[in-house]
Amino acid sequence: MQKYSQLFGKTNKGSKEFDSLNATLLQKAGFISQEMSGVYLFLPLGKKVLDKIENIIRDEMLKISQEVILSNLSSKDKWEKTERINIDILLKAIGANKDSFNRNDTEYILNPSHEEVITPLAKEMNVSYKDFPFALFQIQTKFRNEARSKSGLLRGREFRMKDLYSFHTSEKDLKNYYEKVKISYFNIFEKLGLKDYTIIAKASGGDFTNNFSEEFQILCENGEDTIYFDEKNDIYYNKEIAPQNILHNGKKASEAGNIFILKDKYTKIFDYKFKDKSNEENYVYMGCYGIGTTRVMGIIAEIFNDDKGLIWPESISPYDIHLIGNNDSQTRKIIKIIEENKLSVLWDERENIGIGEKLKDADLIGIPKRIIISERSLENGGVEIKRRNEELGKIVEISDLANYL
Amino acid sequence: MQKYSQLFGKTNKGSKEFDSLNATLLQKAGFISQEMSGVYLFLPLGKKVLDKIENIIRDEMLKISQEVILSNLSSKDKWEKTERINIDILLKAIGANKDSFNRNDTEYILNPSHEEVITPLAKEMNVSYKDFPFALFQIQTKFRNEARSKSGLLRGREFRMKDLYSFHTSEKDLKNYYEKVKISYFNIFEKLGLKDYTIIAKASGGDFTNNFSEEFQILCENGEDTIYFDEKNDIYYNKEIAPQNILHNGKKASEAGNIFILKDKYTKIFDYKFKDKSNEENYVYMGCYGIGTTRVMGIIAEIFNDDKGLIWPESISPYDIHLIGNNDSQTRKIIKIIEENKLSVLWDERENIGIGEKLKDADLIGIPKRIIISERSLENGGVEIKRRNEELGKIVEISDLANYL
Repeated sequence: MQKYSQLFGKTNKGSKEFDSLNATLLQKAGFISQEMSGVYLFLPLGKKVLDKIENIIRDEMLKISQEVILSNLSSKDKWEKTERINIDILLKAIGANKDSFNRNDTEYILNPSHEEVITPLAKEMNVSYKDFPFALFQIQTKFRNEARSKSGLLRGREFRMKDLYSFHTSEKDLKNYYEKVKISYFNIFEKLGLKDYTIIAKASGGDFTNNFSEEFQILCENGEDTIYFDEKNDIYYNKEIAPQNILHNGKKASEAGNIFILKDKYTKIFDYKFKDKSNEENYVYMGCYGIGTTRVMGIIAEIFNDDKGLIWPESISPYDIHLIGNNDSQTRKIIKIIEENKLSVLWDERENIGIGEKLKDADLIGIPKRIIISERSLENGGVEIKRRNEELGKIVEISDLANYL
Repeated sequence: MQKYSQLFGKTNKGSKEFDSLNATLLQKAGFISQEMSGVYLFLPLGKKVLDKIENIIRDEMLKISQEVILSNLSSKDKWEKTERINIDILLKAIGANKDSFNRNDTEYILNPSHEEVITPLAKEMNVSYKDFPFALFQIQTKFRNEARSKSGLLRGREFRMKDLYSFHTSEKDLKNYYEKVKISYFNIFEKLGLKDYTIIAKASGGDFTNNFSEEFQILCENGEDTIYFDEKNDIYYNKEIAPQNILHNGKKASEAGNIFILKDKYTKIFDYKFKDKSNEENYVYMGCYGIGTTRVMGIIAEIFNDDKGLIWPESISPYDIHLIGNNDSQTRKIIKIIEENKLSVLWDERENIGIGEKLKDADLIGIPKRIIISERSLENGGVEIKRRNEELGKIVEISDLANYL
């Protein structure tokens, strides 16, 4: 149980509007704070939502891969090798103090993605056909020096991402695994409450590959992408590669995930070969698969809200229940019942603040389930259980509460 | 259950010796891989140990504070303000590509610590005496451009740390909280299996404060610090501030944590005041408290080992049980029993590899509890349960196994 009066990061209904809807809602409700353009701090409520998003992703990923943590820093020569040293968004780290003992020290790259790190690592560890296939993922911070960064959590200079890499001895095996990842991704977006908003669209390979990639696009008014539907072939396309004849009725969307068949693009560069049964050597086939975890949080804030505030999907709500009730023994009894049912509670126990104002804060914060203990509810024999967007709740006897949680 | 044949990061007994004992052991056993000097990648076994260490710390911290995630990047002006812009270890991030659209962009600081971020954040959120005291922690990556980085996980250019910050309206309240943190820290080091190695020592305040700080030193042959005991006053001192008359019988140790009474050092710089009941304004009192989580992993590897390999404390072992047994239905039955008892298993099911070699790998990996299913054990009526450093195990009937787990 977290007392609202002691929660770090209160609602701030009167604060200014920010550059995007998600940044405005999440800052007014006390989930994040902007450090700089494209760089956000996650307050306790925001940290809880982000953890839940990342744990949903982790659980699915652990079914098809192993978890690692790669580094944020890597050496320049790897990026020279892949010719990504000149991509616009790349940041490097150097000593800040010109007079320090480290002034002549190596420059490091701040990884915007990890193909340059994981390919040599995989090569160091696994070269026999017996070691294949294998797949590794991490959930980690990435750095990209974006030109414009005015979309809140949708486009960060520093952001968090789940990235998965898979390694195979044949293109067929890679493609089988690629289809498995698609299923995982649909499971993830369903668990995140995004089932009805998720569309897979063909897109370019960007800096990653000359092949097409596929994007998991989430339908969203303020998304940066536009996708078009090719009815004849039943395929969605990102605007950048959509055929000319389908460029109408575009839908705004935000890219939450992407999957790439890299084939031997990186394994060739790093000369990563496996030995088959007859000791013959061939390049390893590789795929990579990303989901932006902080971006997903931003997308969900963009989609699930009304004019009163946020409305979190239950699976990623910062607390299971928003409880409004005085600081007395009756309320404590109810908290005990809730916690015995393994549910977490944010308890607004502030004194000298009316129920009306507390409800407005609860609307802004957006926990989908709430319990209100008021004079009215007690006169009617119990507590009021109410969904975030219900007008009227249900009065439930305290002795009966456990059945309604 | 993880099959050893499919685990990413196998043992490599023949690999070269690295610059420190912990780096050598952890790399030979397949826990980490060196990316560059002072920068390590965590393979699946290493990720599991690090998670367990961080979760032990998180559980204790959540009893006395709230969790946030601050950013890795911050703006230069904050570091100019605190006059830490010239400290030797500071790294900055700038566009890597001279010709990119961002070439004139702001430089960012890569945070080596977070006083410069959290003090303005706290000021933005909490200014009424009613909001105090409060405390925030994060577990995050830090960046320090160390001159020498040859101690494996003991000194990284990129490393992970738990940092806690507390804010108070009086020095007395700060000191009370400071004592609470000490108790938390002793709990943490006890849970990490380090109880008999943990010593609190007085030290200088470093770049943080002109006051003394206190360090949680872990006795360790290869530690970088030396601590001296002042018998008369029953106090340990770090070498740097030890009085001249006690400089004998020094003990080698490695600093795993430190706690600082910052008073108003940072709140003054950022003009962070609270309003008391009579609306009078005073500077907020502040403390900061760190534990290096990757460093703790290195220290534990330095302490708990023998000539055969690592010996993990049970609380942070990557798996609960190292199982050696053929890939057959009998072994699967035993795995089922283990997992029904909520224990995790690393299963060495490799074919064509003798039990002798498997035991050597198990010794190197260092999971403290193992179960061996061999012809010998089955002839004797069951499975052999054995501690990492026991010569002979105990034969237990399969039907009786659950009682011995």
